[in-house]
Amino acid sequence: MGMPLELNTMIVTKGRAERLEENLFRLKKDGYRLYPIDILVEVKKTIRGEISGTARIKKVEWTEGKTILTYQLLSLHTTN
Amino acid sequence: MGMPLELNTMIVTKGRAERLEENLFRLKKDGYRLYPIDILVEVKKTIRGEISGTARIKKVEWTEGKTILTYQLLSLHTTN
Amino acid sequence: MGMPLELNTMIVTKGRAERLEENLFRLKKDGYRLYPIDILVEVKKTIRGEISGTARIKKVEWTEGKTILTYQLLSLHTTN
Amino acid sequence: MGMPLELNTMIVTKGRAERLEENLFRLKKDGYRLYPIDILVEVKKTIRGEISGTARIKKVEWTEGKTILTYQLLSLHTTN
Repeated sequence: MGMPLELNTMIVTKGRAERLEENLFRLKKDGYRLYPIDILVEVKKTIRGEISGTARIKKVEWTEGKTILTYQLLSLHTTN
Repeated sequence: MGMPLELNTMIVTKGRAERLEENLFRLKKDGYRLYPIDILVEVKKTIRGEISGTARIKKVEWTEGKTILTYQLLSLHTTN
Repeated sequence: MGMPLELNTMIVTKGRAERLEENLFRLKKDGYRLYPIDILVEVKKTIRGEISGTARIKKVEWTEGKTILTYQLLSLHTTN
Repeated sequence: MGMPLELNTMIVTKGRAERLEENLFRLKKDGYRLYPIDILVEVKKTIRGEISGTARIKKVEWTEGKTILTYQLLSLHTTN
């Protein structure tokens, strides 16, 4: 039996990101997920939604069936 | 949406490995699975079974929701 | 000792993609690389270059220290 | 540019594991490393050494170019 994981290429917040500091956020996701760390990734609110910003993941934690991301939001694409 | 994959640390044949040549075998598994290539891995018939041999994976192919392994069986643990 | 691999989130061709059929291409890269398969990825000529298209990877092969991608180019962003 | 990582199938302590509690240990490794979490893995002191025990990884953290494992040592193979 192997270990299920999911390869993710962007951050999808579903509005659940928690602000830790100025531009530092934490996001908890179900399951073990592989994210690119230290490089730029796109941030979206929903999978099919528009890109809402660019971030750099600073920390990935896997424990108890969850993935906890800590990321720095570098730019925000606001659409009015 | 991410891409589901499974991290595997050994080969579990379930008796479905196909011999290609002398000690070269091919095994098709469902889903996309990550296996260590070029290094020694254990081979088992069933997940909870005993180790039946040692192999070196020479090729991993991912396509159409399947993983195809080509591996060299290096030693066989026979139990009579 | 582990197995080195590289997580890639987009296809960088460096002008070395080989056309197999109409919109089907093959690209050989050094090392074992993990790419998202079956989902949309961006295609670039160079790492820091502009996005030149969108593709869907149909096959990933790992063998002899190389990664061979077969991908379908879905759209091309031409800039004149 | 991708993100380098290393697929590991066992824990190699090099004598640097730190005891946190009774049978709970922490180990810091260089680089980002993929380990199977929640399933049984072998523990060794050195890559080519004998198996010194069996463990279950409870937490994997990736940050600042390091991987920090928290694991439960389940059995110890002592050789006198």
